[in-house]
Amino acid sequence: MMKEIIVTPLSQELRESLQDKINQKTKPPGSLGKLEKLALQAGLIQETLTPALKKPAVIVFAGDHGIAADGVVNPFPQAVTAQMVYNFLQGGAAINVFCRQHQLQLIVVDAGVNHVFPRHPMLKDRKIAMGTQHMLRGPAMSQDQCRLAMEAGAEEVRMLHEGGCNIIGFGEMGIGNTSAAALLMSHFTSIPVADCTGAGTGSNTQQLAQKKAVLQQVIQHHPSPRTALQALATFGGFEIAMITGAILQAAALKMIVVIDGFIVTSALLAAVAMQPAVKDYCVYAHCSEEKGHKAMLGFLGVQPLLQLDMRLGEGTGAAIAIPVIQSAVLFLEEMASFSSAQVSNRNSI
Amino acid sequence: MMKEIIVTPLSQELRESLQDKINQKTKPPGSLGKLEKLALQAGLIQETLTPALKKPAVIVFAGDHGIAADGVVNPFPQAVTAQMVYNFLQGGAAINVFCRQHQLQLIVVDAGVNHVFPRHPMLKDRKIAMGTQHMLRGPAMSQDQCRLAMEAGAEEVRMLHEGGCNIIGFGEMGIGNTSAAALLMSHFTSIPVADCTGAGTGSNTQQLAQKKAVLQQVIQHHPSPRTALQALATFGGFEIAMITGAILQAAALKMIVVIDGFIVTSALLAAVAMQPAVKDYCVYAHCSEEKGHKAMLGFLGVQPLLQLDMRLGEGTGAAIAIPVIQSAVLFLEEMASFSSAQVSNRNSI
Repeated sequence: MMKEIIVTPLSQELRESLQDKINQKTKPPGSLGKLEKLALQAGLIQETLTPALKKPAVIVFAGDHGIAADGVVNPFPQAVTAQMVYNFLQGGAAINVFCRQHQLQLIVVDAGVNHVFPRHPMLKDRKIAMGTQHMLRGPAMSQDQCRLAMEAGAEEVRMLHEGGCNIIGFGEMGIGNTSAAALLMSHFTSIPVADCTGAGTGSNTQQLAQKKAVLQQVIQHHPSPRTALQALATFGGFEIAMITGAILQAAALKMIVVIDGFIVTSALLAAVAMQPAVKDYCVYAHCSEEKGHKAMLGFLGVQPLLQLDMRLGEGTGAAIAIPVIQSAVLFLEEMASFSSAQVSNRNSI
Repeated sequence: MMKEIIVTPLSQELRESLQDKINQKTKPPGSLGKLEKLALQAGLIQETLTPALKKPAVIVFAGDHGIAADGVVNPFPQAVTAQMVYNFLQGGAAINVFCRQHQLQLIVVDAGVNHVFPRHPMLKDRKIAMGTQHMLRGPAMSQDQCRLAMEAGAEEVRMLHEGGCNIIGFGEMGIGNTSAAALLMSHFTSIPVADCTGAGTGSNTQQLAQKKAVLQQVIQHHPSPRTALQALATFGGFEIAMITGAILQAAALKMIVVIDGFIVTSALLAAVAMQPAVKDYCVYAHCSEEKGHKAMLGFLGVQPLLQLDMRLGEGTGAAIAIPVIQSAVLFLEEMASFSSAQVSNRNSI
């Protein structure tokens, strides 16, 4: 499974030269904060002193969840997944707005929505099934389905990469997928599932208690998946498994991988369990308001770029963060150095 | 002084209609976090359900400081102020990079740099003097100079507004101006000056102790300015006073005012002391790493948009935040509603 995809840790060969180039820019050392770290990371990923973002893209993977069919864990009905896919195709969702604003290519993938869509130039048909199974009746998907999904995600990334894209953000749509993400989080971080479970699209207190109870039952039903793949198949979703494969492929191709919120990070947890070096290629767009995301980022030991109290998914956090990454790459490319601008450095007093 | 400038509190007439429009967008309520608050604020400022950002601009005010002439409080020599102005005019500074990236008009104002510049299309000559006085020998400037500076800042804003600009960020350049800002902060917030004093462009431990000692002496030398204007004249800088006037004028013209970091916020503290309603028009771009900025924002009771660990000044935080404000205005304008996109809302289950 995915055996051909090997993610290698970043070469550190250019680190010193990149840091020196950053320090020679006309600003107090360190004063661009996280932008300086991003510039360094982009240079290391692209193995150049002159990194550049090319054809940035966002892929939104959509899938339905068996656990959401009866409306017990989700305030919005399952039909909203398909309705939102149509909204994406018509350009009316938040992710459409932000991708237009920042000229990001947007691709929507039907990973397994419980609806048959007509053909549309923006929609890729990668449907594994009409939604996952209810996790109280079995694993969400078979391991074969999980492998297929990961491979489909990887293929979408390869096609973008062949078109010249070198930075990619991932997003998702799937009513019920905060439940899947909470279960994956609990499995990979060993944090009790109740502490991984949040309000999702807006559960009230009673709904949240119900959601936690159901997820606790799911854990009891599937006590101990033995591998990352088995965990992803048991607790995941088709859109989540595709994102896991997509992240692995993007990192293997030395693309900058922009991680969005709670669900995308749950897919990353599976990817990291399979290939730890994948973290080197990731930028963490924002800290979602969805309970659990902060602890996920803490488990990974990483800092998010933005904290805008967003919790919408769709890749919206990634889309808003990409211009910040662009700022980092641009300052490295375009700012004058102390010597080129004839500005006195501290040491030249 | 500035008597013609009256800042009125925001009318709340459209609040409910704006909030309703935001809630009808195809997303869980509140899920765009700070973007939703920005959309609401922009609508209230512009008194419309369809706010839009027009001809966004950044003005960088540059000035020199008597207290910096001997290099006691500043790691970089005073000459760097003029050198950086040339860097701005040549397009090589960080603020140039970010303004180009986001197509923001950039204007540089010589508020009082200790250097005579040749004419340049991007540079406005508003020089009050060749730098302020050393605050251990008297107030930084006379109250007449302070009024002149505030009026000059206001005039620059009026010209942009007449050209169609309705959102403006302010930046500054002035070796030594974290000292002025710390003194203003201490005056307006009653926080001891030592707690307002940070490393600026990069003081080491010894330099920082020296800086605190000098600023403490300045406070003892000028124990109790009676008015906000007198405090601004005593402790400020020409660029800071111009920003105070510019902020007041921009708010009076119902422009969106994008507040940058530590120094710009110190100018805002003076503006708020003069006209408290000015706060209604401000967006707080980021929390600077310069010590004291977080406490300043806390004193104002406001939340910054971004926390990118930046501390460069020049308006760089404002420039990077403006696209986020644009995202807020665009989602309000362009996103579909539940009914227009035929997406089921929670209540329609």
